[in-house]
Amino acid sequence: MTHTSEVLKPFMLGIDHVGIAVPDLEEAIRWHYDVLGLEVQHREQNAEQGVDEAMVGPSDAAPGGVLIQLLAPLTPESTIAGFLDRKGPGLQQLAYRVTDVTAASAALVEHGVRLLFAEPKRGTAGSRINFIHPKDAGGVLVELVEHTAK
Amino acid sequence: MTHTSEVLKPFMLGIDHVGIAVPDLEEAIRWHYDVLGLEVQHREQNAEQGVDEAMVGPSDAAPGGVLIQLLAPLTPESTIAGFLDRKGPGLQQLAYRVTDVTAASAALVEHGVRLLFAEPKRGTAGSRINFIHPKDAGGVLVELVEHTAK
Repeated sequence: MTHTSEVLKPFMLGIDHVGIAVPDLEEAIRWHYDVLGLEVQHREQNAEQGVDEAMVGPSDAAPGGVLIQLLAPLTPESTIAGFLDRKGPGLQQLAYRVTDVTAASAALVEHGVRLLFAEPKRGTAGSRINFIHPKDAGGVLVELVEHTAK
Repeated sequence: MTHTSEVLKPFMLGIDHVGIAVPDLEEAIRWHYDVLGLEVQHREQNAEQGVDEAMVGPSDAAPGGVLIQLLAPLTPESTIAGFLDRKGPGLQQLAYRVTDVTAASAALVEHGVRLLFAEPKRGTAGSRINFIHPKDAGGVLVELVEHTAK
């Protein structure tokens, strides 16, 4: 591994969301509303990623604020289903917002950091995403998110 | 469990930080700087919680923004040491900022949600904290943080 410092600094915009693996999306949405008072800001199913998901946050959250991503499996073969089988429900990923996921990915690969995908994939709300391998990120599944114009 | 809705909504200010269990604090600080470009915003040892910790975030992070909390064990008997033994390094907790941790705790207990402490304890930078039991929060260790005037 070469040792260029601050590899992602030119691209880093901050934390985007925290992903939680949940077996039942409706139940998780209800708990986050009933107990924490967080409201659904966005919902979708992402067939490619195999997830049924909801973004929740405070009702008065500033646009672009950090949200909680509730992730339920769409199929028994999905990554989230595998996570639930191995580890049970709980914190699953930590996502950082970057200006350019393609350039950020190239900088990481050049630094010797392994990514899950050779090319960015489609994330929540049309964003472009890639992941740092947890083995190269201290056991954390780190997602990089580039939000695209709607 | 009674079913009053939005228990924490009157107290909820949003996400405060995301905690990551790390075996070696210096190495984790270095990785977050070298790879992600995140800088140390605060460091301390909390003997009561048994942690050696650092808060890291973007250098231009707004005051009060969401940070990453790197948590290393101070002793082999600490909660973080136990977490590392059982689960290995990785995402360990999700903290929400509240206006009043005592009132928030009372509202949760009344709702039938179990907390780890009967009374708030001292958290990072003199904050007052309590935790929702992961069994009552979908497998997530949820911390509630009240920041106090310095």
